[in-house]
Amino acid sequence: MTRLFNFNPGPAALPQSVLEKAQNAILEVDGWGAGIMEVSHRSPQFENMLAEMQVKMRRIMNIPDDYHILFCQGGARMQFAMIPMNFLHTSAAYVDTGTWSDKGIEASELIGETRVVASSKEQNYNHIPAADPSWLQGDESYFHITSNNTIYGTQWHNFPDTGDVPFVIDMSSDIASDVVDFSQFDMIYAGAQKNIGAAGVTLVLIKDEFAQKAKADHLPPMLRYSTFIESNSLYNTPPVWNIFIVKLMIDWLEEAGGLEAIGKRNREKAAALYSVIDESPTFFKGHATEDSRSIMNITFNLPSVELEKKLVADATAAGFMGIKGHRSVGGIRVSNYNAVTVEAVAQLTAFLKDFAKRNG
Amino acid sequence: MTRLFNFNPGPAALPQSVLEKAQNAILEVDGWGAGIMEVSHRSPQFENMLAEMQVKMRRIMNIPDDYHILFCQGGARMQFAMIPMNFLHTSAAYVDTGTWSDKGIEASELIGETRVVASSKEQNYNHIPAADPSWLQGDESYFHITSNNTIYGTQWHNFPDTGDVPFVIDMSSDIASDVVDFSQFDMIYAGAQKNIGAAGVTLVLIKDEFAQKAKADHLPPMLRYSTFIESNSLYNTPPVWNIFIVKLMIDWLEEAGGLEAIGKRNREKAAALYSVIDESPTFFKGHATEDSRSIMNITFNLPSVELEKKLVADATAAGFMGIKGHRSVGGIRVSNYNAVTVEAVAQLTAFLKDFAKRNG
Repeated sequence: MTRLFNFNPGPAALPQSVLEKAQNAILEVDGWGAGIMEVSHRSPQFENMLAEMQVKMRRIMNIPDDYHILFCQGGARMQFAMIPMNFLHTSAAYVDTGTWSDKGIEASELIGETRVVASSKEQNYNHIPAADPSWLQGDESYFHITSNNTIYGTQWHNFPDTGDVPFVIDMSSDIASDVVDFSQFDMIYAGAQKNIGAAGVTLVLIKDEFAQKAKADHLPPMLRYSTFIESNSLYNTPPVWNIFIVKLMIDWLEEAGGLEAIGKRNREKAAALYSVIDESPTFFKGHATEDSRSIMNITFNLPSVELEKKLVADATAAGFMGIKGHRSVGGIRVSNYNAVTVEAVAQLTAFLKDFAKRNG
Repeated sequence: MTRLFNFNPGPAALPQSVLEKAQNAILEVDGWGAGIMEVSHRSPQFENMLAEMQVKMRRIMNIPDDYHILFCQGGARMQFAMIPMNFLHTSAAYVDTGTWSDKGIEASELIGETRVVASSKEQNYNHIPAADPSWLQGDESYFHITSNNTIYGTQWHNFPDTGDVPFVIDMSSDIASDVVDFSQFDMIYAGAQKNIGAAGVTLVLIKDEFAQKAKADHLPPMLRYSTFIESNSLYNTPPVWNIFIVKLMIDWLEEAGGLEAIGKRNREKAAALYSVIDESPTFFKGHATEDSRSIMNITFNLPSVELEKKLVADATAAGFMGIKGHRSVGGIRVSNYNAVTVEAVAQLTAFLKDFAKRNG
């Protein structure tokens, strides 16, 4: 058994204690007489577990009372479709900060008038555009951004005020990674597989007032948010196992001291990783501009593709996995999600500094 | 650790050996350096596992070469939406044999002309309607049935010849439970959580010639079958864990001797359970007519609701779970999927016969 230091961009590392609890629930959940995958989603056992988990999640993540907590399937990509199908009545405004924003825009354009109000594409998405009051006219159905851009390693650190325009945010790669004021958004969604669970379930937080604005009677029930709201996500058989892993992650977040503690830890881990770039900026060339740096994904290039290949090979040999950059940027990407340990980051940081010394 | 005899209608029992293999893959898959939920779906490890599993599945289930093997999310309910959204160009013909057929019809009616060509609703869905050549005119976009009706305990044992009309079948509750000639269908789909896995993944087998008939350019990519075909189900992050459980079930089916052996075993288990009804037909009143009886779900009522409650209570006390009937039929439902053991059925059969003796 050799678990490597795991910096995968997603699906990503999970905490060892969560994995051990998951193992224990496979043959039998305490007193259920069956494993977690073998019990009806309509049993009192599962319904109670779901309800208790939602209460705890609301508390730990500070989700306002008028936001529904939903569990959907199909990842952020299905949300890219469902959002305009339910809510695009006038026009939608999107900021394009990378591949995932772009895929959201692509889906929205098939449904209705979609305006890209800002984009950092020309600079290979190396920054988050500065907020500009001219982005919105005020009659938009919603405004959409991607809070963290895994591929490019950029992240919004201040959110624009959208006035009366509903604010929809894809937080797939930074949900529950730090304290955030959800009340500034009308809808928050996130695939679970980076910070709060395993692939196969999507967390959707939706303000009731916004949910009411959907026009969805023409859609099959599975594509309406109202279906998930009215059934508490039990309209059809949900991904029971995947929801259970989210529950274990919420328990883990609580044990770790909540979002304040986890946010502090993530920022400290990121600072250690960015110190590698800042100490040798001509060797480790950061992709993101400083004020747009992501706490979740640290991206940089080396002086040559050969050195990048050597770094990935040496790191793999030394027991680090998942640091090869996405093909759009090349180079190196270190993902620093909730479950990445301080120890793993310390080891990698030392390794990188040593690599620079030996090869710089 | 007390695993009860599990007759849940779905999510349902999984084989103990599959669960143990799943446990072992949580902390580390052999040589991967991480658990199955922590590895990229684009890693060679996962892609190879998926490819090998598809080859084995094609062989074990005898899936013709010109059928794509896809893994979707959202359960059969999402297929209820995607099928008409992709394929309903002229009209669609549905046979209504119960709740799930009905939900498929409901979704299709929102998309286009939908004709219910036969229904057993008036008889509380106690039988499968006899095939009738007048059902189809020949220009329909597709013909749709539900092969097994979990709630009512009925199952199609002979399939109509649809001529040139594409035949779409929901096999959510009897996929891979017996030998079947898939080449008579153009599309087969099944939520995994009854016979071949856990909730959270949907198997879709689609004939290439039929897939070509989709008109889906107006749909967001996640709602097009072509997206799943072109990406081998890896357009976005798939439910890695849930696909892995299907892989383990395919391995298990192979070890169990393939579909011929598993079909024989399922038919023998069902015969034992139906013998309970046939030996005491005034006490155990079968819901399904004899020629429509399901191998997967055995449904019956007792002389009174009080006796039914007593039976469920006594069975629970004796270590049997999941035999309470669905509220639409009441009474008792015993689900007899692949993972339900011969031993479990023998024990329950003896218990039921004894209950009749003591209370009949």
